Amino acid sequence: VGTPSEVVRGFLAAIEAKDVDAALDFLADDVSYENMPMDPIVGKVATDAVLRSFLEPAAAVEWRILREVVIDELVVNERLDRFRIGDDWLELPIAGFFEINDQGLIRRWRDYFDMGSYTRQLAALTGGG
Amino acid sequence: VGTPSEVVRGFLAAIEAKDVDAALDFLADDVSYENMPMDPIVGKVATDAVLRSFLEPAAAVEWRILREVVIDELVVNERLDRFRIGDDWLELPIAGFFEINDQGLIRRWRDYFDMGSYTRQLAALTGGG
Repeated sequence: VGTPSEVVRGFLAAIEAKDVDAALDFLADDVSYENMPMDPIVGKVATDAVLRSFLEPAAAVEWRILREVVIDELVVNERLDRFRIGDDWLELPIAGFFEINDQGLIRRWRDYFDMGSYTRQLAALTGGG
Repeated sequence: VGTPSEVVRGFLAAIEAKDVDAALDFLADDVSYENMPMDPIVGKVATDAVLRSFLEPAAAVEWRILREVVIDELVVNERLDRFRIGDDWLELPIAGFFEINDQGLIRRWRDYFDMGSYTRQLAALTGGG
Protein backbone atom coordinates (compact mmCIF):
# COMPACT_ATOMS: atom_id res chain seq x y z
CA VAL A 1 0.00 0.00 0.00
CA GLY A 2 1.51 3.31 -1.08
CA THR A 3 1.14 6.69 0.54
CA PRO A 4 -1.90 8.74 -0.57
CA SER A 5 0.35 10.82 -2.82
CA GLU A 6 1.85 7.68 -4.38
CA VAL A 7 -1.61 6.23 -5.00
CA VAL A 8 -2.80 9.34 -6.79
CA ARG A 9 0.40 9.67 -8.80
CA GLY A 10 0.22 6.00 -9.79
CA PHE A 11 -3.35 6.49 -10.91
CA LEU A 12 -2.51 9.59 -12.95
CA ALA A 13 0.46 7.81 -14.54
CA ALA A 14 -1.84 4.99 -15.67
CA ILE A 15 -4.23 7.58 -17.15
CA GLU A 16 -1.34 9.20 -19.00
CA ALA A 17 -0.40 5.76 -20.37
CA LYS A 18 -4.05 5.39 -21.48
CA ASP A 19 -4.01 2.12 -19.54
CA VAL A 20 -7.54 2.11 -18.10
CA ASP A 21 -7.18 -1.39 -16.64
CA ALA A 22 -4.13 -0.26 -14.65
CA ALA A 23 -5.92 2.93 -13.60
CA LEU A 24 -8.90 0.96 -12.28
CA ASP A 25 -6.57 -1.00 -10.00
CA PHE A 26 -6.12 2.22 -7.98
CA LEU A 27 -9.87 2.62 -7.39
CA ALA A 28 -12.09 1.18 -4.67
CA ASP A 29 -15.01 -0.95 -5.92
CA ASP A 30 -17.46 1.67 -4.67
CA VAL A 31 -15.45 4.64 -5.94
CA SER A 32 -17.36 7.88 -6.41
CA TYR A 33 -16.06 9.87 -9.38
CA GLU A 34 -17.47 13.38 -9.27
CA ASN A 35 -17.10 15.93 -12.05
CA MET A 36 -18.63 18.89 -10.28
CA PRO A 37 -21.46 19.79 -10.45
CA MET A 38 -22.61 16.70 -12.34
CA ASP A 39 -24.05 13.63 -10.65
CA PRO A 40 -21.45 11.26 -9.20
CA ILE A 41 -20.36 8.29 -11.29
CA VAL A 42 -20.40 5.41 -8.80
CA GLY A 43 -18.48 2.15 -9.05
CA LYS A 44 -15.61 0.87 -11.13
CA VAL A 45 -17.75 -0.35 -14.04
CA ALA A 46 -19.31 3.07 -14.64
CA THR A 47 -15.98 4.83 -14.11
CA ASP A 48 -14.30 2.46 -16.58
CA ALA A 49 -16.77 3.48 -19.30
CA VAL A 50 -16.34 7.20 -18.65
CA LEU A 51 -12.54 7.01 -18.58
CA ARG A 52 -12.45 5.13 -21.88
CA SER A 53 -14.85 7.57 -23.50
CA PHE A 54 -12.70 10.59 -22.85
CA LEU A 55 -9.31 8.98 -23.28
CA GLU A 56 -10.29 7.37 -26.59
CA PRO A 57 -10.20 10.51 -28.80
CA ALA A 58 -6.76 11.52 -27.48
CA ALA A 59 -3.60 10.41 -29.29
CA ALA A 60 -1.66 11.29 -26.12
CA VAL A 61 -2.55 12.32 -22.58
CA GLU A 62 -0.62 14.41 -20.05
CA TRP A 63 -2.10 15.28 -16.68
CA ARG A 64 0.44 17.61 -15.14
CA ILE A 65 0.41 18.18 -11.39
CA LEU A 66 1.08 21.90 -10.83
CA ARG A 67 0.58 21.81 -7.06
CA GLU A 68 -0.12 19.06 -4.57
CA VAL A 69 -1.36 19.30 -0.99
CA VAL A 70 -1.69 16.21 1.18
CA ILE A 71 -3.52 16.11 4.53
CA ASP A 72 -3.89 12.64 6.01
CA GLU A 73 -5.89 10.59 3.49
CA LEU A 74 -6.76 13.58 1.28
CA VAL A 75 -4.72 14.56 -1.76
CA VAL A 76 -5.56 17.88 -3.41
CA ASN A 77 -3.96 18.89 -6.65
CA GLU A 78 -4.08 21.65 -9.20
CA ARG A 79 -3.54 20.07 -12.59
CA LEU A 80 -3.31 20.95 -16.24
CA ASP A 81 -4.94 18.00 -18.00
CA ARG A 82 -3.82 17.87 -21.63
CA PHE A 83 -5.22 15.73 -24.47
CA ARG A 84 -3.57 15.61 -27.86
CA ILE A 85 -6.23 15.72 -30.59
CA GLY A 86 -4.65 15.47 -34.03
CA ASP A 87 -1.70 17.87 -34.02
CA ASP A 88 -2.97 20.11 -31.21
CA TRP A 89 -3.43 19.89 -27.47
CA LEU A 90 -6.68 20.43 -25.59
CA GLU A 91 -5.73 21.90 -22.18
CA LEU A 92 -7.93 21.98 -19.12
CA PRO A 93 -7.06 23.47 -15.69
CA ILE A 94 -8.50 21.24 -12.95
CA ALA A 95 -8.67 21.15 -9.16
CA GLY A 96 -8.79 17.55 -7.93
CA PHE A 97 -9.68 16.15 -4.49
CA PHE A 98 -8.81 12.47 -3.93
CA GLU A 99 -9.77 10.55 -0.78
CA ILE A 100 -7.83 7.35 -0.13
CA ASN A 101 -9.26 4.47 1.91
CA ASP A 102 -7.53 2.14 4.38
CA GLN A 103 -6.65 -0.26 1.56
CA GLY A 104 -4.75 2.44 -0.32
CA LEU A 105 -7.48 2.79 -2.94
CA ILE A 106 -9.18 5.94 -4.20
CA ARG A 107 -12.69 6.00 -2.80
CA ARG A 108 -13.63 9.52 -3.96
CA TRP A 109 -12.28 11.48 -6.90
CA ARG A 110 -13.74 14.94 -7.27
CA ASP A 111 -12.67 17.30 -10.06
CA TYR A 112 -13.62 20.95 -10.47
CA PHE A 113 -13.22 22.48 -13.95
CA ASP A 114 -14.98 24.48 -16.63
CA MET A 115 -16.82 21.99 -18.83
CA GLY A 116 -17.45 24.60 -21.52
CA SER A 117 -13.71 25.05 -21.95
CA TYR A 118 -13.41 21.31 -22.63
CA THR A 119 -16.34 21.03 -25.05
CA ARG A 120 -15.39 24.16 -27.02
CA GLN A 121 -11.81 23.02 -27.48
CA LEU A 122 -12.87 19.49 -28.40
CA ALA A 123 -15.30 20.82 -31.02
CA ALA A 124 -12.66 23.14 -32.47
CA LEU A 125 -10.02 20.41 -32.63
CA THR A 126 -12.24 17.67 -34.04
CA GLY A 127 -14.42 19.81 -36.30
CA GLY A 128 -11.80 22.11 -37.74
CA GLY A 129 -9.99 19.43 -39.75
CA VAL B 1 -2.65 40.09 11.16
CA GLY B 2 -4.85 36.99 11.29
CA THR B 3 -3.95 33.44 10.38
CA PRO B 4 -4.39 32.48 6.71
CA SER B 5 -7.64 30.71 7.59
CA GLU B 6 -8.91 33.78 9.47
CA VAL B 7 -8.03 36.05 6.55
CA VAL B 8 -9.95 33.91 4.07
CA ARG B 9 -12.92 33.51 6.40
CA GLY B 10 -13.01 37.26 7.04
CA PHE B 11 -12.95 37.90 3.31
CA LEU B 12 -15.75 35.41 2.66
CA ALA B 13 -17.84 36.89 5.48
CA ALA B 14 -17.52 40.34 3.89
CA ILE B 15 -18.64 38.87 0.56
CA GLU B 16 -21.64 37.28 2.26
CA ALA B 17 -22.51 40.68 3.76
CA LYS B 18 -22.23 42.12 0.22
CA ASP B 19 -19.75 44.61 1.71
CA VAL B 20 -17.27 44.94 -1.15
CA ASP B 21 -15.31 47.71 0.58
CA ALA B 22 -14.72 45.45 3.57
CA ALA B 23 -13.85 42.53 1.28
CA LEU B 24 -11.23 44.62 -0.55
CA ASP B 25 -9.48 45.29 2.77
CA PHE B 26 -8.44 41.61 2.77
CA LEU B 27 -6.75 41.84 -0.65
CA ALA B 28 -3.20 42.89 -1.56
CA ASP B 29 -2.95 45.84 -3.95
CA ASP B 30 -1.55 43.56 -6.64
CA VAL B 31 -4.01 40.73 -5.99
CA SER B 32 -4.49 38.25 -8.81
CA TYR B 33 -8.07 36.98 -8.98
CA GLU B 34 -8.27 33.96 -11.25
CA ASN B 35 -11.47 32.31 -12.39
CA MET B 36 -9.97 29.36 -14.18
CA PRO B 37 -9.36 29.18 -17.10
CA MET B 38 -10.09 32.86 -17.75
CA ASP B 39 -7.40 35.53 -17.75
CA PRO B 40 -6.42 36.77 -14.28
CA ILE B 41 -8.07 39.92 -12.97
CA VAL B 42 -5.17 41.90 -11.51
CA GLY B 43 -5.34 44.61 -8.87
CA LYS B 44 -7.94 45.81 -6.40
CA VAL B 45 -9.65 48.23 -8.79
CA ALA B 46 -10.40 45.54 -11.36
CA THR B 47 -11.39 43.04 -8.67
CA ASP B 48 -13.71 45.62 -7.09
CA ALA B 49 -15.62 45.98 -10.37
CA VAL B 50 -15.95 42.23 -10.88
CA LEU B 51 -17.11 41.58 -7.31
CA ARG B 52 -19.78 44.27 -7.54
CA SER B 53 -20.99 42.97 -10.89
CA PHE B 54 -21.71 39.50 -9.60
CA LEU B 55 -22.91 40.42 -6.12
CA GLU B 56 -25.28 43.06 -7.44
CA PRO B 57 -28.01 40.76 -8.85
CA ALA B 58 -28.15 38.73 -5.62
CA ALA B 59 -30.61 39.60 -2.86
CA ALA B 60 -28.52 37.46 -0.51
CA VAL B 61 -25.20 35.65 -0.72
CA GLU B 62 -23.94 32.56 1.12
CA TRP B 63 -20.52 31.09 0.41
CA ARG B 64 -20.45 27.92 2.47
CA ILE B 65 -17.10 26.32 3.26
CA LEU B 66 -17.60 22.55 2.94
CA ARG B 67 -13.96 21.64 3.49
CA GLU B 68 -10.84 23.63 4.30
CA VAL B 69 -7.19 22.63 4.03
CA VAL B 70 -4.42 24.96 5.21
CA ILE B 71 -0.73 24.47 4.43
CA ASP B 72 1.50 27.35 5.48
CA GLU B 73 0.27 30.42 3.56
CA LEU B 74 -2.10 28.46 1.31
CA VAL B 75 -5.78 27.99 2.09
CA VAL B 76 -7.73 25.54 -0.06
CA ASN B 77 -11.46 25.21 0.26
CA GLU B 78 -14.35 23.40 -1.31
CA ARG B 79 -17.32 25.73 -1.25
CA LEU B 80 -20.93 25.93 -2.25
CA ASP B 81 -21.40 29.54 -3.35
CA ARG B 82 -25.08 30.46 -3.23
CA PHE B 83 -26.77 33.57 -4.65
CA ARG B 84 -30.42 34.34 -3.99
CA ILE B 85 -32.07 35.57 -7.18
CA GLY B 86 -35.69 36.46 -6.57
CA ASP B 87 -37.16 33.62 -4.53
CA ASP B 88 -34.64 30.99 -5.61
CA TRP B 89 -30.99 30.20 -5.00
CA LEU B 90 -28.32 29.83 -7.65
CA GLU B 91 -25.81 27.27 -6.32
CA LEU B 92 -22.28 26.79 -7.55
CA PRO B 93 -19.73 24.22 -6.29
CA ILE B 94 -16.26 25.79 -6.24
CA ALA B 95 -12.70 24.82 -5.38
CA GLY B 96 -10.76 27.86 -4.12
CA PHE B 97 -7.02 28.35 -3.64
CA PHE B 98 -6.00 31.43 -1.62
CA GLU B 99 -2.38 32.51 -1.12
CA ILE B 100 -1.75 34.90 1.76
CA ASN B 101 1.22 37.29 1.82
CA ASP B 102 3.41 38.40 4.75
CA GLN B 103 1.02 41.27 5.51
CA GLY B 104 -1.90 38.90 5.98
CA LEU B 105 -3.49 39.90 2.67
CA ILE B 106 -4.74 37.69 -0.13
CA ARG B 107 -2.31 37.96 -3.03
CA ARG B 108 -3.81 35.22 -5.20
CA TRP B 109 -7.37 33.96 -5.30
CA ARG B 110 -7.96 31.14 -7.74
CA ASP B 111 -11.39 29.53 -8.18
CA TYR B 112 -12.23 26.43 -10.23
CA PHE B 113 -15.88 25.94 -11.22
CA ASP B 114 -18.20 25.21 -14.12
CA MET B 115 -19.08 28.57 -15.66
CA GLY B 116 -21.92 27.04 -17.70
CA SER B 117 -23.62 25.95 -14.51
CA TYR B 118 -23.56 29.57 -13.32
CA THR B 119 -24.77 31.16 -16.55
CA ARG B 120 -27.54 28.61 -17.13
CA GLN B 121 -28.93 29.05 -13.62
CA LEU B 122 -28.68 32.84 -13.82
CA ALA B 123 -30.56 32.87 -17.13
CA ALA B 124 -33.25 30.57 -15.75
CA LEU B 125 -33.68 32.59 -12.55
CA THR B 126 -33.70 36.03 -14.18
CA GLY B 127 -35.50 35.14 -17.42
CA GLY B 128 -38.15 32.84 -16.04
CA GLY B 129 -40.03 35.53 -14.09
